[in-house]
Amino acid sequence: MADSDRANAPPLPLTRASILSAHDAIAHQIHRTPIFTSSSLSTALPGKNALFFKAENLQKGGAFKFRGASFSLSRLSADELAKGVCTHSSGTFVSFLVFNVCNHAGALALAAKERGVKCYVVMPNNSAQPKIDAVRSYGASVTFCEPNAPARAAALAKVQAETGATFVPPYDAVNTIIGQGTALLELMGQAPEPLAAVVAPVGGGGLLAGTALAAEGTGVRVFGAEPAGADDCAQGLKEGKRREDVQANTIADGLRTPVGVLNFPIIQEKVEKVITVTDEEIVEAMRLMWERLKLVVEPSGAAAFAAVRSAEFQELGIEGPIGIIISGGNIDLSKPLPWTRQN
Amino acid sequence: MADSDRANAPPLPLTRASILSAHDAIAHQIHRTPIFTSSSLSTALPGKNALFFKAENLQKGGAFKFRGASFSLSRLSADELAKGVCTHSSGTFVSFLVFNVCNHAGALALAAKERGVKCYVVMPNNSAQPKIDAVRSYGASVTFCEPNAPARAAALAKVQAETGATFVPPYDAVNTIIGQGTALLELMGQAPEPLAAVVAPVGGGGLLAGTALAAEGTGVRVFGAEPAGADDCAQGLKEGKRREDVQANTIADGLRTPVGVLNFPIIQEKVEKVITVTDEEIVEAMRLMWERLKLVVEPSGAAAFAAVRSAEFQELGIEGPIGIIISGGNIDLSKPLPWTRQN
Repeated sequence: MADSDRANAPPLPLTRASILSAHDAIAHQIHRTPIFTSSSLSTALPGKNALFFKAENLQKGGAFKFRGASFSLSRLSADELAKGVCTHSSGTFVSFLVFNVCNHAGALALAAKERGVKCYVVMPNNSAQPKIDAVRSYGASVTFCEPNAPARAAALAKVQAETGATFVPPYDAVNTIIGQGTALLELMGQAPEPLAAVVAPVGGGGLLAGTALAAEGTGVRVFGAEPAGADDCAQGLKEGKRREDVQANTIADGLRTPVGVLNFPIIQEKVEKVITVTDEEIVEAMRLMWERLKLVVEPSGAAAFAAVRSAEFQELGIEGPIGIIISGGNIDLSKPLPWTRQN
Repeated sequence: MADSDRANAPPLPLTRASILSAHDAIAHQIHRTPIFTSSSLSTALPGKNALFFKAENLQKGGAFKFRGASFSLSRLSADELAKGVCTHSSGTFVSFLVFNVCNHAGALALAAKERGVKCYVVMPNNSAQPKIDAVRSYGASVTFCEPNAPARAAALAKVQAETGATFVPPYDAVNTIIGQGTALLELMGQAPEPLAAVVAPVGGGGLLAGTALAAEGTGVRVFGAEPAGADDCAQGLKEGKRREDVQANTIADGLRTPVGVLNFPIIQEKVEKVITVTDEEIVEAMRLMWERLKLVVEPSGAAAFAAVRSAEFQELGIEGPIGIIISGGNIDLSKPLPWTRQN
């Protein structure tokens, strides 16, 4: 059994039906986040498509990650829950903005706290204090490690050995993927007309793989949005093989992780195209969303809209409503906004 | 007939019943804006009150003003609609942030545009270009005047004489007040439990007077929130007489106008207290709302929450849920955020 499957015995099949049952399991714990539209953003597009933004920045913990964390917890036995859960705070150790990297660790900590379950988080010892505070504010117990992958794995193994806690991976796990897919399920029920397509960002690929599964058999075309500065998924699709390395030179800190082992083949099979967007395009999409939707959206959360605005997407000539998943809104508001930084 | 009543013949009585019928008249045109809660913001309060934020920053045009504008238009005859409507872009001529002052003029222009009605806006000739562009983007015809009150009145009279357009005042008018009251009506229907109190900001007093009328007979206690730097309403209530002058030294640009002639007696009779808040309190409330609610809120839109957080309000010991009206979200995002400016 893969490391990533430890939390998931017995795993559900990776199908739309599993996502429907996952939604039944977690609907009482998650926010049914609202959808947003903007006629000015729609009419500015060459295709004038109606846009339905799924506001997962308004999800508990400020990101869609709470879905996967909640579903992962729902699959644990009473015995496992009694011992708690653990995770690490990031997939890579590049320098992150404060808060953002905590999306999964924070979501798991919050979901665990709401159920009275202990949560252990391994964080690099060079983490910024606000990031540590954020995870602790959700009641998690923090263990520090040297800022490299082997040290992290060792620290996590030690926590597991000492506590018996179950590891809940951030994206490369069946239950995580299935849980994230519930966002599109809701969006499809909320949009007043059937979607022609949906666009979700891809970092580790939990959200995009889950979205693709949720769309299966519905006729909704699925697209990914990836930063040009961390385009391992798009490159891997071109080469027909998952890339294990990832450059991580993008403002979209939530998308810097390499696409996961389980996630890649699902994306390969079910996602029509992964569109890469520059940081400039992400920042402009983000600014428009703040201005027109009045929503605080993090750079990763603006990537899907940036992709929809791109020539590459518009040239597809898709007619009909487009669903756009706003993945999160966790951003350090004490820093200058990115579009003012660029001026 | 007062100047402010010209658009409103025959006026409805200033009662809760009128607000109910106004809502019926405009419900298909306005957004039924969602309500937001935050357990972290609630538990941080001494009283731990549940908080229900009515997100009028998500209203069309980015502010509650669209309600009053829509209802004012709904009261016009076909003949009046054919001639169009007019207004001016601000009540005072202090230096405003870009966009914000356009809340009423922009709302009226947008409401008129949606109905195919002409809209004329008188603006001071020192208005910032983005402000002019914003009003024009809604299809309004802009007339410039010298930046003082007599010049504005003369320009408006000239527009009316030339076009026959009906003047729709920003706050000091029966229909405007009744229209704004529909926000609380919706909030009361959306909150899962009865509100103990509601807090709305007060500038010209359209929203607060409308809110007080909407609350009448329901048992919901009504409070106003006013910036300390523009506290003419609170001062007038203490002195038992409306003040005609207003200092306007506050970041909350939407609240710099003096309270209206029609508005003041309604507030005097029906609002329990107007709580003044400092700019520092407004900025801190605003920051918390951006961070926790993930909403782009303008300073005026944060005043009511700032009042709820104040010692003066907390000392009232109100038990039960509090409604908070987020009046708008129109802010110039190209400028530094106010809490970063203060650092």
